[in-house]
Amino acid sequence: MKSYQEAVQFHGHSCPGLAMGYRMTKAALEFFSTERAVDEEMVAIVENDACGTDAVQFLSGCTFGKGNLIFKDFGKMVYIFYHRASGKAIRIGRKSSFRTKLSDTQISSEERINLILTSPEKDIVQIEEINIPEPEYSRIFDTVLCEICEESVVESKTRKLNGKIVCIPCYEKQKKKEGN
Amino acid sequence: MKSYQEAVQFHGHSCPGLAMGYRMTKAALEFFSTERAVDEEMVAIVENDACGTDAVQFLSGCTFGKGNLIFKDFGKMVYIFYHRASGKAIRIGRKSSFRTKLSDTQISSEERINLILTSPEKDIVQIEEINIPEPEYSRIFDTVLCEICEESVVESKTRKLNGKIVCIPCYEKQKKKEGN
Repeated sequence: MKSYQEAVQFHGHSCPGLAMGYRMTKAALEFFSTERAVDEEMVAIVENDACGTDAVQFLSGCTFGKGNLIFKDFGKMVYIFYHRASGKAIRIGRKSSFRTKLSDTQISSEERINLILTSPEKDIVQIEEINIPEPEYSRIFDTVLCEICEESVVESKTRKLNGKIVCIPCYEKQKKKEGN
Repeated sequence: MKSYQEAVQFHGHSCPGLAMGYRMTKAALEFFSTERAVDEEMVAIVENDACGTDAVQFLSGCTFGKGNLIFKDFGKMVYIFYHRASGKAIRIGRKSSFRTKLSDTQISSEERINLILTSPEKDIVQIEEINIPEPEYSRIFDTVLCEICEESVVESKTRKLNGKIVCIPCYEKQKKKEGN
């Protein structure tokens, strides 16, 4: 398991959000008795894009660039992990009692981080086994050349414009010119 | 500068996409004579979410969880980097001649990776200085409790439902029940 200090190096700095993401992801990996995903063995569905998601990426190997980090913009400190080998999924969140403890305005950010890193897992996280369909594997599409800028673009992201196959930025630029 | 091998560890495996992202991000950091962003000193706007973006995150410190990785779903192998200290921005892409070289079906994935990692930068990447407005800093919003599930949710992501403040998943569940 990667250490918190290593996660800090990836994120750039230490903060309560990263520490919480670290504990939540660690708990998830332990639940599945699994290591970091080399490829797409695990999928994380994150319900926010705050600091803790960098711990998700770093610890679990569910990364933005590998297609196994799915973002749902719900603003909730909740992660869902799907483990392909077992077909099991868990929904992991903070315990409300721990959230209340952290919201004490008398404690510093440093103390908050320490509290998160040192409290027993059962006091911090709440894990629920859930049933969800297996997420799709990420797909690789063919690329074509945009007929305006001549840069390569993934075929599934092209637009048709006056009989030409173009990329989205060229399409938008042209539409803006035309006043649409 | 982080090594390619370190980037491979973060991504989970070595592949041509990661190698290309590595060279492009390295070129960007060298252009600005800067190190990895500890906080939001740099912003990356990535025009795809493929493997190379993990090199962007790992090398530049523009990460999904820090708010300085902006995703435009254009399917293009293009990254824009904004450097706050200088107010400068660059758009970085692959040279079309290099893209052609890589598309040779006779060479293996391993050879392709080696070609990407060992070719001179001037043969691989194309850097253009561009003028863009400074991207906003990421914001921190207050959280409230959803009046249905009682989980905490970022205030800006709540919905109103029959006079209650609720989270998006509870809102959607309720609307589905009502057949809307």
